Amino acid sequence: MKKIIIASTSTLHNGSYLDYLLPTLASHFKGIGNLLFIPYARPGGISHDDYTSKVSEAFAKIGIGVKGIHEFDNPITALEQAEGIFTGGGNTFLLVTQLYKTGIIETLEKVVKNGTPYLGTSAGSNICGLTMGTTNDMPIVYPPSFKTLSFVPFNINPHYLDPIEGSTHMGETRETRINEFHHFNSQPVLGLREGSWLEVIGNKITLKGDLTARLFRQNQTPEEITTGSDLSDLK
Amino acid sequence: MKKIIIASTSTLHNGSYLDYLLPTLASHFKGIGNLLFIPYARPGGISHDDYTSKVSEAFAKIGIGVKGIHEFDNPITALEQAEGIFTGGGNTFLLVTQLYKTGIIETLEKVVKNGTPYLGTSAGSNICGLTMGTTNDMPIVYPPSFKTLSFVPFNINPHYLDPIEGSTHMGETRETRINEFHHFNSQPVLGLREGSWLEVIGNKITLKGDLTARLFRQNQTPEEITTGSDLSDLK
Repeated sequence: MKKIIIASTSTLHNGSYLDYLLPTLASHFKGIGNLLFIPYARPGGISHDDYTSKVSEAFAKIGIGVKGIHEFDNPITALEQAEGIFTGGGNTFLLVTQLYKTGIIETLEKVVKNGTPYLGTSAGSNICGLTMGTTNDMPIVYPPSFKTLSFVPFNINPHYLDPIEGSTHMGETRETRINEFHHFNSQPVLGLREGSWLEVIGNKITLKGDLTARLFRQNQTPEEITTGSDLSDLK
Repeated sequence: MKKIIIASTSTLHNGSYLDYLLPTLASHFKGIGNLLFIPYARPGGISHDDYTSKVSEAFAKIGIGVKGIHEFDNPITALEQAEGIFTGGGNTFLLVTQLYKTGIIETLEKVVKNGTPYLGTSAGSNICGLTMGTTNDMPIVYPPSFKTLSFVPFNINPHYLDPIEGSTHMGETRETRINEFHHFNSQPVLGLREGSWLEVIGNKITLKGDLTARLFRQNQTPEEITTGSDLSDLK
């Protein structure tokens, strides 16, 4: 049975890394001694080791140890034996490229669909949808495919950002970008604001956190989804 | 001899389409009766016909006719016979995908390098660099490659945006994204603010417009480039 948290962001403004999520994670990863961390997205170009240390510090607060997947000789076996998995944020193009190049993407999909508890934040959440086609990141490397893990049957837009009132900048708003996506793709896109997350338990998908989320469907007016909503039928 | 304008944006806040550039374009395209327009980037999903009409209206003000490349049976011949070429903004992933799929990318590169006057705005400027790896756009379609036209030997970041003071949003700033690019790519990136453009005449590259531009080089502190600067040696 799937057991997944798909979070918009790891960190809230003025908060420290993962802090706002720790009570949720203590329950989500209950009974787990060690977590397998996938550091491939490398925010700001941080090394795999440094990123793993940062994550270890946060999870130490709830008594969970962390080891990076790059520390294992056989990452496939590491995934198969993992008690729980966390993919952190950073650059989604880099993350997806690494998932394909290391050959772990199929195993990651399989073990999480079979029930290994998973946490994604930001880029690690983007990959939970059907494709990475609604990431906000810069295409700094060229991935072999945009297809991702399909833990949910729609796409995620993390760090969803409302249009900035009074802005004089002429670049596209997030909403415009997602509308452009829907000219060429039919799946719904869920814009998760910072502080929101999806909880996936089996086939049940629930919006969590204090905020509403913005749901975009092809050829439909976007709508605001209240927290606590059941999104299990969204596809 | 190359004759190219690479503009950050088509439109300034409170301005109408291409207005701020028209005096420059009247000179850049002097003696040209008809311009070939490449509408593939389709901002907001606008149709090729509608986009071409919009461009026609703007160029009518300086007495230049416009025809869309999609109106020609043979786009390769259309490029070879064009008096001048304009690639408009929109989604860079879509634009680059279409340039490859229609098979025109090599011809476009050749004729502009051989001297056909060219204008790019936004996505149409992104493709003037070595790769599209520093676009701000959403990856709504999967291009066969990120390699672009290399009219200049570096990368362009159009609509360059300074960090927003007091922002509580935790998504990456533009500068962070470009720094991430430089962990995996060595070419310089020029952040062109809205209202700035590059003029390329032969091998001479000059920053134009009222603003400074922000230059990012691998392993160096970013620097502000004043308007009028000669960037011919940048690579």
